[in-house]
Order: sequence, then C-alpha cells, then structure tokens
Amino acid sequence: MEGLFITLEGGDGSGKTTQAGRLEAWLTESGRSIVRTREPGGTDLGLELREIVLHRRGHIAPRAEALLYAADRAHHVETLIRPALERGDVVIQDRYIDSSVAYQGAGRVLGGDEVRDLSLWAADGLMPDLTILLDLDETEGRRRLDASRTTYDRLEAEKAEFHARVRAAYLSLAEAEPERFLVVDASLPEADIATLVRERVAGLLA
Amino acid sequence: MEGLFITLEGGDGSGKTTQAGRLEAWLTESGRSIVRTREPGGTDLGLELREIVLHRRGHIAPRAEALLYAADRAHHVETLIRPALERGDVVIQDRYIDSSVAYQGAGRVLGGDEVRDLSLWAADGLMPDLTILLDLDETEGRRRLDASRTTYDRLEAEKAEFHARVRAAYLSLAEAEPERFLVVDASLPEADIATLVRERVAGLLA
Repeated sequence: MEGLFITLEGGDGSGKTTQAGRLEAWLTESGRSIVRTREPGGTDLGLELREIVLHRRGHIAPRAEALLYAADRAHHVETLIRPALERGDVVIQDRYIDSSVAYQGAGRVLGGDEVRDLSLWAADGLMPDLTILLDLDETEGRRRLDASRTTYDRLEAEKAEFHARVRAAYLSLAEAEPERFLVVDASLPEADIATLVRERVAGLLA
Repeated sequence: MEGLFITLEGGDGSGKTTQAGRLEAWLTESGRSIVRTREPGGTDLGLELREIVLHRRGHIAPRAEALLYAADRAHHVETLIRPALERGDVVIQDRYIDSSVAYQGAGRVLGGDEVRDLSLWAADGLMPDLTILLDLDETEGRRRLDASRTTYDRLEAEKAEFHARVRAAYLSLAEAEPERFLVVDASLPEADIATLVRERVAGLLA
C-alpha cells in the first residue's frame, strides 16, 4: 500500500482541526494507518522552534523567522513524514509549505517565491499529494477565533488586512496547482465539508 | 568613517579568540569603535539556537541544522552586524559563512554550494571585508583543545578525519577568494600572528 500525504490549509478558525479529525476517523475505519501531525511543532525539536516563532517576545528578523519555520519542516519531513509515507501510512497534516508562502509572503518583507524555494530545500522536494484549502472570509475567521480564544499568538494577533492578504495568497496558490488543491467553502456545514473531502480522498485511494 | 567587517575562521584550538582580542585592543587604541561578536550565538535569539545546535541531545536532521545556523546568522546580521557597520564600527567576529560551508560541507550530507547559497540568503548577501584563516594541523588543534577542555560540544566531538576535511575545505575557500582571505600559519608565535593581522588590517583602513 502506498503512503498518502494530505495537508490542510486555511486561516485560523477555518476548521482544519475538525476536518482533520473527521478524515482521520473515516480513514481509520477503512483500515488505513494514520499519522496526524502539524507544523510548526510536529517533533520535539519542532516544539522548541514553535515556541520561539510563535511565542517569543521581541523582534525576530523576517529571514530568521522563515529559516526557523524551514528548520522545523526539515526535521519533521526527515524524521517523521517520510518514514510514515515509506511505511504506507496516510499523513494528515495541519499546515505545510503553503502556510509558509501565504503567511510569510503576506508579511510583505520576503517574496513568496524565495519562501517557497527555501521550504522546498528544507523538505528536500517533498510535496503533498492533496492539499485541502478551507477558504473563509477573514472577518468570519476572526469572529470564530474571538469566540474560542482569550490570547493570540504572533500570527493570530496580526491585523485584518494581513489575514486578507493571506487568504488571497492561498487562493492564488490553489489556482496555480488545481490538481493538488481541493478548495472548500469553510462556511458550509461541517458534515458537508467532510463529504467533499472524503470524495476527493476516495478518488486518490482508488 | 566606514565600517569594516572582519571574521576569524579556523578549527577549534587555532587561536581565534586570542587573535580577536589582540586585534580589538590594537584597533581600540587607534580610536575605532569595535563590536566583538560570534556565531552561533551573537544575539539573545542566537544563544537559544546555539544551545540547540551545539548541545541538544538526540539527532538533528542535517538540513534542519543548516537552517538553524542560517536563522542565527539572519537575525545576527539584521539586528547587530549591519547596524554596527552603518555606524562605522569595526565588527570582529568569531566564525561566519565560511564556518558553515567548511563544517556542514565536511559532514558530507549537504554540498558546500547549497550551504553557501543558504547562508548568503540568510545574510542578505553580506560578506566580510576580511577573513583571517588561522590554519592549523588538525592533530595540533586537538592537542590544544584536549589541554584546555574537559567536555566537547557536538562539533568538537567529531573524529580527526572530519576535522581534516574541515581544514581542507577552509584552504580551498581561501584559495578561491585570495583578496578576501588572509591565511596565517596558526603554529607561529601569537605575537607574530598578531603582527601579520595588523599589517593586513592597516592596509584596509588606509
């Protein structure tokens, strides 16, 4: 059985965790071995780096930030994702290379292309078989987040305009690679989204 | 007055710290403002990363390690080195881009060229005006280190063959850029080395 690498992307509050859980439950029922993971922070080293990039006080140079996300990715891919795929597992992952391009590019200091090149080097070229983009209006995403959180990390605390740029960057990435992306309207009912995701994944497994 | 960026390179035990101190004292007497710094670990963020790359237990993926050194460099260049050079200071730094190329390249997992490209991106292209390579036979370097230390970090603990590859990589970098490098026989008396360094730096300041 061949491994399958599925990533979930979208703004905070778009429902990535919920959909990853539903997909995991469905695939487990069908007998597949699943690895659920995330970036940043999918390994022990990654957790230390996640703490630095998301919660450290004080300025971090934009290139340094991009390199820390890339370091987290490099270690994650080599020690966890590739071994899982080689075993034939399905890897369901919250955020990957598209998050780097969308968020760091939206910060307007670094270009999306150089962030992508850096990420690809870190990942030694590994791209997902399927990327599910949960697309949500940024004001609705913020409303959901406000209802569930009392504190924000570095990225969550960015202004609405930043999150609008992130959304636009995601949609542009999806448009450039329609065969890799499934774009879903994240304002649909959870069960409807889960059905759309299952249909696409079933096609890949067939 | 224009800033000047001087880096010291060489194996452990080659006398970089001693020569940096002598050069600092001489330049301070001549009225220049000096910033003494090092990589990894020239900033607060860098100290956290230095701890990870040099002292963390357990495997670190080679690409992740290279990216962590690069993150340290990116933050250091943006927040400390460039501002110092813009003020007209002389920056005297223990290890920089040539260390990355020589050590990570000597590890034989990554190529010297890709490590150099990564470092240059991290540093946004900043290269030293002068690099002093303190060249020492690796067995003599180890003898000196054994006499002064009871514990080794990750790189110091590598085998003699590794340190021989590092030395060869350094000499090859110096050969490729003779105008940037001053190669000094590190087995010479300290005072003689300091004189050679002063002569070269005086030429740059003139």
